[in-house]
Amino acid sequence: MTIFEESLQKHFEWKGKISVHAEVPADTPEALSLAYTPGVAAPCLAIQKDPDLSYELTRRWNTVAVITDGTAVLGLGDIGPEAGMPVMEGKCLLFKHYGEIDAVPLCIRSKDPDEIVRTVSLLLGSFGGINLEDISAPRCFEIERKLKAISDIPIFHDDQHGTAVIALAALMNALRLTGKKKENLKVVINGVGAAGTAVGRLMIRYGVPNVIFSDRNGAICEGDSLFLTEEHERLSHISNPNHEHGSLREIIRGADLFFGLSRPRLVDEEMVRSMNRDSVVFAMANPEPEILPEAAKAAGARIVGTGRSDYPNQINNVLAFPGIFRGALDVRAKEINEEMKISASEALSSLISDEELCETYIIPKPFDPRVRDAVARAVAETARKTGVARI
Amino acid sequence: MTIFEESLQKHFEWKGKISVHAEVPADTPEALSLAYTPGVAAPCLAIQKDPDLSYELTRRWNTVAVITDGTAVLGLGDIGPEAGMPVMEGKCLLFKHYGEIDAVPLCIRSKDPDEIVRTVSLLLGSFGGINLEDISAPRCFEIERKLKAISDIPIFHDDQHGTAVIALAALMNALRLTGKKKENLKVVINGVGAAGTAVGRLMIRYGVPNVIFSDRNGAICEGDSLFLTEEHERLSHISNPNHEHGSLREIIRGADLFFGLSRPRLVDEEMVRSMNRDSVVFAMANPEPEILPEAAKAAGARIVGTGRSDYPNQINNVLAFPGIFRGALDVRAKEINEEMKISASEALSSLISDEELCETYIIPKPFDPRVRDAVARAVAETARKTGVARI
Repeated sequence: MTIFEESLQKHFEWKGKISVHAEVPADTPEALSLAYTPGVAAPCLAIQKDPDLSYELTRRWNTVAVITDGTAVLGLGDIGPEAGMPVMEGKCLLFKHYGEIDAVPLCIRSKDPDEIVRTVSLLLGSFGGINLEDISAPRCFEIERKLKAISDIPIFHDDQHGTAVIALAALMNALRLTGKKKENLKVVINGVGAAGTAVGRLMIRYGVPNVIFSDRNGAICEGDSLFLTEEHERLSHISNPNHEHGSLREIIRGADLFFGLSRPRLVDEEMVRSMNRDSVVFAMANPEPEILPEAAKAAGARIVGTGRSDYPNQINNVLAFPGIFRGALDVRAKEINEEMKISASEALSSLISDEELCETYIIPKPFDPRVRDAVARAVAETARKTGVARI
Repeated sequence: MTIFEESLQKHFEWKGKISVHAEVPADTPEALSLAYTPGVAAPCLAIQKDPDLSYELTRRWNTVAVITDGTAVLGLGDIGPEAGMPVMEGKCLLFKHYGEIDAVPLCIRSKDPDEIVRTVSLLLGSFGGINLEDISAPRCFEIERKLKAISDIPIFHDDQHGTAVIALAALMNALRLTGKKKENLKVVINGVGAAGTAVGRLMIRYGVPNVIFSDRNGAICEGDSLFLTEEHERLSHISNPNHEHGSLREIIRGADLFFGLSRPRLVDEEMVRSMNRDSVVFAMANPEPEILPEAAKAAGARIVGTGRSDYPNQINNVLAFPGIFRGALDVRAKEINEEMKISASEALSSLISDEELCETYIIPKPFDPRVRDAVARAVAETARKTGVARI
């Protein structure tokens, strides 16, 4: 039986992976009159007077909505909102297991960015944070940007930023291991979807000057006449400072880090050999990476990572989002800003001591019990420092 | 300490009355690959192929959204979405305790009926049913009507129909007790908000020919020049067949049943004395009824009921909505139609045997353990009979 057959069978048995529980009694007239009418009028009026009390008197302090439109579910593409629900329930399951967070899955029957923004914006008062999930690029950028502009709670598109936070942690530890300086790095990111874009943006924000984005048309370069999307044009203004043109084979020459979020077998050994000394290759294509770790190693890559659990240095989003949301909720953050993401990367990278750090261990394991609290602490602290914490 | 002070204190302790629980493991790589990636792709694709499988492979089969805009919360009026959350959480608590249903509270930051309709319509794929709650009249009628027209799952405004189902059950048992026939009844309903409207409509649908709605302007009568709302005009066409005009004092004369959803102390003993023999008085104004039960009895009413737990014959919505939704979910009903509501009333009234039936016991007690299953069975059976059940 394949993992897919087994999972389908389990899902038929489970009939849902999360449930709602009652946390207080309601089985006597006395209990009802406290938890419901008439007593409940008191907390209602208290919140009406001071809306921040919704974090004290309801479950809002610990509740996140996991929201999709079903347009980019896993690698399956646009399968629709109902078909996206098993993934959203799974995400909520992880929120609970790894973050002790109450997460509610909502699948929206619209593909119109403005309509999705409007729908989510009308629900903000019910949640402490919003996790956007599996929304196709470039729509995801527009939806997140517009929502962040009007939201008073964190908006976090995990496909973008979860991956970016872990990728940056990996980069931080690659720097530690190789002794290179971020100011001198050349990074090539192939695949300019949600994740690739966010990975590159966060590295640029962190202080890596030379990040080049590329897709099947080659390097994205400022001044090019044709951009597929507005987002590509935006990226062109902040990346590729040396205006390199050409195919991936051309621009990967001399790169210190290759980060692939593209297609299987896109990178060959010759390309890896053309990279700088002590090169780092992250091949995230799923299920088969851009280049197999064995081949990348043989071609001289010093550090190799993938999205797979059967190779070292796995980028697994469960390392990031539970702690990030835990930290944001703990201080009732109004947003999750860039500084908070970078501090999450620092927390992740710091979990590996100098003694432990090695080519096959630059990212903590997904099941490392220290991860959640370390990330949450760092994120909460940075939220306070940057003035976005409510408490 | 008042019940309000005690409830506020409890809410500060509780910090939320419901929570989301993980129902399956996710703490090992094997568990993750079944409940999440990569295995979860299989149930996703299965639902894409057959959307009805969302009831088998996710929690949809047992999940209801409790939705408000915060415009008519308890007797508090328009206190806003955040301030409505303690009531919505309370409602979800009751859904779980009394119906074993997973209910998710959503408070919408809009008062525009069309926008609320659009928002809810986009979320229908995530739920097995929608419970509308504490939305002000007449907006609630428009919102429910428009939603029902486009929804493939039940839409149920409990403030309307929950109350109506129990009121009809009370009427059924009043008929049993007094030997009167529904065809000969005169019913006066004072207070034409969400609940009053629905109570009258369901009684008309059940076959009571002479129902008269009234408000502070007196009886609603077809052909009147001025109606406050479209809903009042709609009601005028199906009610008051004898075209009675006048104040409540005038139209209550000869009535068999008075149903008040209006204001305290609106009815005096003289008015009750003017009713037909074996009269029934339901005085639901909160917290103080239109007439105190002692006074109504003294003035000759045979059966008296209120919304209060300290008097006999309490109309408490917990008698209806858990079983109605349980039954609807059990057969994956596409809607909750009039026949299903009437069958719920019949189930409720039938729980009281001929031997038990008496003036102070025409409605089952809210904590009667038989209520939920009896109502659910009746509703599910009627859903099947009327062709709205999916299974």
